[in-house]
Amino acid sequence: MESIKAKGYGASNSIFSGLSEMEFERHAPKEDEVHIDVLYCGVCHSDLHQVKNDWSNTIYPCVPGHEVIGRVVQAGSGVTKFKVGDLVGVGCMIDSCGSCAPCRDKEENYCEGPVSWTATYNGYMKPDGSGYNTYGGYSTDIVVKESFVLRIPDSLDVQAVAPILCAGVTTYAPLKHWKIKQGDTVGVVGLGGLGHMAVQLAAAMGAEVTVVTSTKEKQEDAMKLGARHVLISSDKDALKQHELSLDFIINTIPDSYDINEYVSLLKRNGTIVAVGLLGPYKKPLNNMEVAMHRRSVAGSIIGSIQETQEVLDFCAQHNILPEVEMIKMQDINKAFDKMQDEEVHYRYVIDMQSLKEPA
Amino acid sequence: MESIKAKGYGASNSIFSGLSEMEFERHAPKEDEVHIDVLYCGVCHSDLHQVKNDWSNTIYPCVPGHEVIGRVVQAGSGVTKFKVGDLVGVGCMIDSCGSCAPCRDKEENYCEGPVSWTATYNGYMKPDGSGYNTYGGYSTDIVVKESFVLRIPDSLDVQAVAPILCAGVTTYAPLKHWKIKQGDTVGVVGLGGLGHMAVQLAAAMGAEVTVVTSTKEKQEDAMKLGARHVLISSDKDALKQHELSLDFIINTIPDSYDINEYVSLLKRNGTIVAVGLLGPYKKPLNNMEVAMHRRSVAGSIIGSIQETQEVLDFCAQHNILPEVEMIKMQDINKAFDKMQDEEVHYRYVIDMQSLKEPA
Repeated sequence: MESIKAKGYGASNSIFSGLSEMEFERHAPKEDEVHIDVLYCGVCHSDLHQVKNDWSNTIYPCVPGHEVIGRVVQAGSGVTKFKVGDLVGVGCMIDSCGSCAPCRDKEENYCEGPVSWTATYNGYMKPDGSGYNTYGGYSTDIVVKESFVLRIPDSLDVQAVAPILCAGVTTYAPLKHWKIKQGDTVGVVGLGGLGHMAVQLAAAMGAEVTVVTSTKEKQEDAMKLGARHVLISSDKDALKQHELSLDFIINTIPDSYDINEYVSLLKRNGTIVAVGLLGPYKKPLNNMEVAMHRRSVAGSIIGSIQETQEVLDFCAQHNILPEVEMIKMQDINKAFDKMQDEEVHYRYVIDMQSLKEPA
Repeated sequence: MESIKAKGYGASNSIFSGLSEMEFERHAPKEDEVHIDVLYCGVCHSDLHQVKNDWSNTIYPCVPGHEVIGRVVQAGSGVTKFKVGDLVGVGCMIDSCGSCAPCRDKEENYCEGPVSWTATYNGYMKPDGSGYNTYGGYSTDIVVKESFVLRIPDSLDVQAVAPILCAGVTTYAPLKHWKIKQGDTVGVVGLGGLGHMAVQLAAAMGAEVTVVTSTKEKQEDAMKLGARHVLISSDKDALKQHELSLDFIINTIPDSYDINEYVSLLKRNGTIVAVGLLGPYKKPLNNMEVAMHRRSVAGSIIGSIQETQEVLDFCAQHNILPEVEMIKMQDINKAFDKMQDEEVHYRYVIDMQSLKEPA
């Protein structure tokens, strides 16, 4: 079969001067794959980290995007879950080894294969440098194995749904793993793309949600999203007053920070989970504060395919949607600037039609 | 009733020049208290930290000792659990607020009262500086509330049992809290007073124990105590080979260290618990390693009174005993030096008879 001519936006090298338009080829869908016409793609803070090579593992050219919504336009002969015309999503992963213990447990996001799971973009490279690069959803077309493709519930607004595929599942998975239930007190640190989903999800699970934010202006938004309390992180008295008050905290801050500022908010046996940071904290953890109340400092990364489907269905059931601002593909660099300056409310979504229209 | 004239060894001020003999008074036992003639007292690494004011909270004079074995010589009129002649123990705590949630849950070691639990020595001081100092078991006599006194099973060797009261329960409590069971792979970092108890306890619970030690010479001892594998911490290849191999790790190192060296030994969903360090780690925790396998970094402090009785009974049942070297009270300063140089195998116990004999 013929390969697919795709257009996208990417970074051509590590001297980051913004994304620019690129043309590339996608392979035609294999037996178990679908070809998706991309309609919308969310803009995640990690897209910016990756194109700037903040994690020293970027392969160029780098075409980001792992919150992809589109329609199936072609399905391989063995595809059974989807048919042409279906509204589908692609999240952070497009493959995994399939044979390690986590994969067998349907926790592909913890794949222990030679290169872990295959990221929707910037994978799959082996430790020896062989392998291939993958291009993400900042593009007109994408081809993905059906077992890594999600069904989008009809009732969800197609323009707003994309961020559930990363921001949604990244916060849903730890809430589920740590068994958050009715009446638990849950803290959400950082009210950005991930945080604003975490608040809605935790509140829908019956938790009493406390938002911790550096931005006083977000107080009202936090309450509208379902928070019961808002703490401004610079207000040390307020933090002091809320010591030992939370069963669980999701920390969504995407850059290095001092974890100790939040640990003391936890109750005895409480857990704080970092979901945004992929690197070292700013300061050494103080085990005095951790041990004195048998607290835990944990981390969690995205969620499994099963959990991604679950969070989509959970959002449909509870009328939860990301708050999005629609942008054109051509405006991505401005959007990155605003995201870095924390001026986005709360997630940019690219309308991919902008890339398909004749220039 | 008349107060009790006691002799002990303590530090008189923060310019640490070693412990010296002191005389002081203990109050006569109140209704719910027993007066204990001290027979033996274990020497814990934290005794050294405390007398040297390493935690900036030492009240002088400081008479350490929280692994106390003795016989009841007098009991208050309301005492029901003990009678004169009983062989008893006193661990790290002699009181707690009794009304907070942890106290109500019989987890006095996580007491959230105004000054947390009352330490056997160097407590009870309130935040405003009021309160009183307590003197520990490096002394001929001690007076303690019966609800904080432990029963010593007859079958345990009275000369070796003392370290179970701190080193034993400090490692038993997290093994129990994190539900270690038959077949689990458990790492023990550091093979000192705490570590050598952790190995025996975890092995008796049916775990496959891996010891991580900086001291190659301890390899044989580790195996004798029940370990199945020994890793030398300087052998980076061996650590690399054992990545993702352990369900649970107890880290007993009593001074600041780099936690990141051990995190990668944990399996997915694994937890590492620091029980020896009461302060910051040496380097910032890298959340990349934590999040990629949903690991947890936790802390735990000693254990409850109920858990202390449990571990005494567990040791009796499984023929577990600390390895001790008996010293005279007068040799405590030499013992501190050797402990600091890691030359103790594995716990010094003071024979208190040495303080009672006429000089």
